[in-house]
Amino acid sequence: MLLDLSDFLPRQSRPLRVKMDEFQREGRLKHLIFASQLELEHLNRLQRLADIIRQLSKTKKGSDALRSLLSHKRAMLYFTQPSTRTFLSFMAACQILGLTCNEVRDPATSSEMKRESPLDSIRMFSSYFDVIIMRSPEAGFSECCAYLMNDLESQEKRSVPIINAGSGSEEHPTQALLDVYTIQRTFQFDSTAGTTGNRLAELNKKYSGLTTGLSNKTYLFCGDLGRGRTVRSLATTLTNYRNIRMFFVSPNHEKLRLDSALRKRLEVANVEFHEFDSLDATLQGQDILSLTDCLYMTRIQIEHNTSADTAALNEMDLSPFHLSPTRLEKLREYAPILHPFPRDSVVQEIPTIIDADPRAMYFRQARNGMWARAALLVHMFNVADQLLFLHNDFYGN
Amino acid sequence: MLLDLSDFLPRQSRPLRVKMDEFQREGRLKHLIFASQLELEHLNRLQRLADIIRQLSKTKKGSDALRSLLSHKRAMLYFTQPSTRTFLSFMAACQILGLTCNEVRDPATSSEMKRESPLDSIRMFSSYFDVIIMRSPEAGFSECCAYLMNDLESQEKRSVPIINAGSGSEEHPTQALLDVYTIQRTFQFDSTAGTTGNRLAELNKKYSGLTTGLSNKTYLFCGDLGRGRTVRSLATTLTNYRNIRMFFVSPNHEKLRLDSALRKRLEVANVEFHEFDSLDATLQGQDILSLTDCLYMTRIQIEHNTSADTAALNEMDLSPFHLSPTRLEKLREYAPILHPFPRDSVVQEIPTIIDADPRAMYFRQARNGMWARAALLVHMFNVADQLLFLHNDFYGN
Amino acid sequence: MLLDLSDFLPRQSRPLRVKMDEFQREGRLKHLIFASQLELEHLNRLQRLADIIRQLSKTKKGSDALRSLLSHKRAMLYFTQPSTRTFLSFMAACQILGLTCNEVRDPATSSEMKRESPLDSIRMFSSYFDVIIMRSPEAGFSECCAYLMNDLESQEKRSVPIINAGSGSEEHPTQALLDVYTIQRTFQFDSTAGTTGNRLAELNKKYSGLTTGLSNKTYLFCGDLGRGRTVRSLATTLTNYRNIRMFFVSPNHEKLRLDSALRKRLEVANVEFHEFDSLDATLQGQDILSLTDCLYMTRIQIEHNTSADTAALNEMDLSPFHLSPTRLEKLREYAPILHPFPRDSVVQEIPTIIDADPRAMYFRQARNGMWARAALLVHMFNVADQLLFLHNDFYGN
Repeated sequence: MLLDLSDFLPRQSRPLRVKMDEFQREGRLKHLIFASQLELEHLNRLQRLADIIRQLSKTKKGSDALRSLLSHKRAMLYFTQPSTRTFLSFMAACQILGLTCNEVRDPATSSEMKRESPLDSIRMFSSYFDVIIMRSPEAGFSECCAYLMNDLESQEKRSVPIINAGSGSEEHPTQALLDVYTIQRTFQFDSTAGTTGNRLAELNKKYSGLTTGLSNKTYLFCGDLGRGRTVRSLATTLTNYRNIRMFFVSPNHEKLRLDSALRKRLEVANVEFHEFDSLDATLQGQDILSLTDCLYMTRIQIEHNTSADTAALNEMDLSPFHLSPTRLEKLREYAPILHPFPRDSVVQEIPTIIDADPRAMYFRQARNGMWARAALLVHMFNVADQLLFLHNDFYGN
Repeated sequence: MLLDLSDFLPRQSRPLRVKMDEFQREGRLKHLIFASQLELEHLNRLQRLADIIRQLSKTKKGSDALRSLLSHKRAMLYFTQPSTRTFLSFMAACQILGLTCNEVRDPATSSEMKRESPLDSIRMFSSYFDVIIMRSPEAGFSECCAYLMNDLESQEKRSVPIINAGSGSEEHPTQALLDVYTIQRTFQFDSTAGTTGNRLAELNKKYSGLTTGLSNKTYLFCGDLGRGRTVRSLATTLTNYRNIRMFFVSPNHEKLRLDSALRKRLEVANVEFHEFDSLDATLQGQDILSLTDCLYMTRIQIEHNTSADTAALNEMDLSPFHLSPTRLEKLREYAPILHPFPRDSVVQEIPTIIDADPRAMYFRQARNGMWARAALLVHMFNVADQLLFLHNDFYGN
Repeated sequence: MLLDLSDFLPRQSRPLRVKMDEFQREGRLKHLIFASQLELEHLNRLQRLADIIRQLSKTKKGSDALRSLLSHKRAMLYFTQPSTRTFLSFMAACQILGLTCNEVRDPATSSEMKRESPLDSIRMFSSYFDVIIMRSPEAGFSECCAYLMNDLESQEKRSVPIINAGSGSEEHPTQALLDVYTIQRTFQFDSTAGTTGNRLAELNKKYSGLTTGLSNKTYLFCGDLGRGRTVRSLATTLTNYRNIRMFFVSPNHEKLRLDSALRKRLEVANVEFHEFDSLDATLQGQDILSLTDCLYMTRIQIEHNTSADTAALNEMDLSPFHLSPTRLEKLREYAPILHPFPRDSVVQEIPTIIDADPRAMYFRQARNGMWARAALLVHMFNVADQLLFLHNDFYGN
């Protein structure tokens, strides 16, 4: 890898708040690089767009109309870090909107063998394609690509939006987007098919004070918290909401615990949070699971272990971080169970027996990724108005 | 591979007849897993659909109309066993109908490195895509995927059709489908361009009693019969027809001969068959080639050899299993020569000199695969009526 | 690789002039194999088509119309030699016109493991797809594929056009096409946005006798001239124009210098050319850069070095073959700087500081590749009339 980002270092080292402004345009996301860019207004607009896309997709006529929205655009999926789920989800999102997809996935492409700089590759992609969706092991690469595009734009040259589909160990903003979208839908407390009456009113009998929406809730994150960029990105995004509390449950190992950067961010955002070393822990005498409105499970990412890590983890009892039918009983009856997937089929942090539980949302969450990412593309390509117009055509008065 | 199919074992071990019922719905194929599912009525309907697709494809207007049929659907081609021909043929079939294609081909995808269970992968695919076309080295995997989908359906969850594009050494039902389609077309004995009069009447002068259709025919299979799932699948499918006879010509080696399972199936189906060790063999004083209505050649699959097999085969004279111009002369003048391809360019079981012979159908057979597979998709997605309607629009009265 | 092209040897060894006739049909290119096929009339027509495609692509309505032109066709990109840029450029070109793309990129596909002959693979591709775009390390392979297709056509069998996307070290005709297209556009001397008046008249004040078009110009090629098929293909194509002069600037190493075949071709075409060993060289007391109308830079292709080559090159000072701001000052103020890319980010034959110079055309050149290749497809599929009709619909009186 001939990646030399030193030219961008001064801009990279500025405070996030300042940098973010350059990735917006007239209130819209121009590039999506950081989870922090996902502010409340964006999240609400994107939820609405995703709901409309989902609804239109139910019919052939609606699907065909959706596919005309961005049929004149071509996407490049540049994934130099292995990925199946995020990759396929973006592919499907593009296809829903009619974008044609192209991919470069090999970490060592021919051009790199020929010593092409990755920034030349990016600019080449921007010559052929209309958006670059990129996953990279290097933290900061997608950020610098966004600067490169901004520089070209200021020279009145061709420039395209950059979407960060996972970079380094820090950022995975579109995962946060789909996680939030799944929680948004769950916390609408819609009456499910077959039930009559108001679900929220029913739940309020047992859980007084329960409200719709993401505010006023307790979120429990369990597993590999230190190395998972999805936890970091979601926790950051949740700070948009009022009166939330977070529980972090992880093995007591420096690489797996809540890291200091996120801890600091939560403190600055004035979010109440607690750390535990078991799903069976209690807080002021109450089972934490019985206090949890939303449970976010993760896999221990053994592929990032050093041999010392493996040795240390082998010494530990990891069962306190696995969901079981017994623990499930303690969890609030409406609390969605999320998992960014893949789950570990050897360790079974969520055994398959739990898949049939109505709270198991992890497969629905995967499907939501498709709608949320399609909504993001509609937003970034500024065709939300056309989408609303379409929707009105189909379902309007 | 973390493939654990034990949950499905009880269902897998039931008799085929019973299992097949679960893969049909209202007389249609819901999943296509076994060649045995291809019953006479299906074969006739699929032939008609394939013919219509082929005809519509001849014009731009027809092609454009075809591409609108399934433009709202997305296919996943999950090929964890190397394949070029079947893969490309399915891609083209999908594209003809407007399905967008996605692929996972690497046997060791990133998710598997992360210890995701293959069943989780399949369920993820079913979240994003509308049909899963899969080739796998594990016999039974696609069958179990069909059970998984049926289970989800019974829980009122999202479920998609599974198509077996080759599994283990046993099943390759869509290859049987295209082989039958090629034979169906050949045995219509249509007058070829440039000839006048009735081709069948001409042929009847020399071959009295010759009729159209697949019944009342002798099929000769030559080559690697024991390890070829195409032979097994086609022979099984041919048992749908009346009064057929099969000749099996293979090296006298236990792995290459007709295997006992197929032998038993033919006995149960009451099919007359004979085994020989050379294409020059005779039956009751007549050259078997002069009795053959359809010749199905195959390649010796050396990539499945153990070193003992290689040693044993090196001792053998394999020339009796190669087609030559001399042998071609003995073959009936209308008999199609099929080969599932690829052919071995070193061994030359069919030398290229034969490609120009009008009976050489193997390249046309490849092209037929595209039409037959497109017909299968039309059937399984239940848009046959729309296709007929389209066709009527173009060619109807 | 089981490539045996001996059957085609007699045809291959004929003179180019004779061979080319077989690759044309009614004045159109039927296959594009050699840069020599790109005659003046083709180049002018293709420029016009490319300009129209570029213009229509500017609007969604125009893009959608373009995508209907070849929506009934399917392309195979068969790239058995690594390539990112040419591959993606062809993908984008196909997508602009609505062609569906399929690819085989692995040099060792499964069929080859099964000893399939590459010619069988090509014929299989021609069964499924409507054009084969191929890059191959073997010189002559695409030429023989074109013969195979011609033979099939003469047998009234299915046959498809072949496009050579780079073969061996000799031919890269579509690179020449896009290079010429970039030069054609530059030498129109259109007034750039923001300027008023006539750009050519302005330039004539300093450069008397300067005219529009590719004739009457000096072209400087610099770098790895011996191993670069792009230099060979472009220099050959430029011989279509009147009164041109070529400067060849390369390290004094037998593999990197102008090779004897091209030298001979230029002599036969009666083109004036000069060889130099530095960009700082002079001709009759004048800096060659100050005489240059178009500068074509290339990368030293170290991946083709033997260890002896590497040793020899390590001894040399290669800085005379690198562009620098100082050298840039000597270059004519309108002279486009081209580079087939990738450029070497270690050696920096063109440092990135030069990218902002208005003469730096290499990224625009890459984008032009897309339009030029789309134009070629329109021409070869004989839909130029439909394109002109479309264009008239949008912009005509």
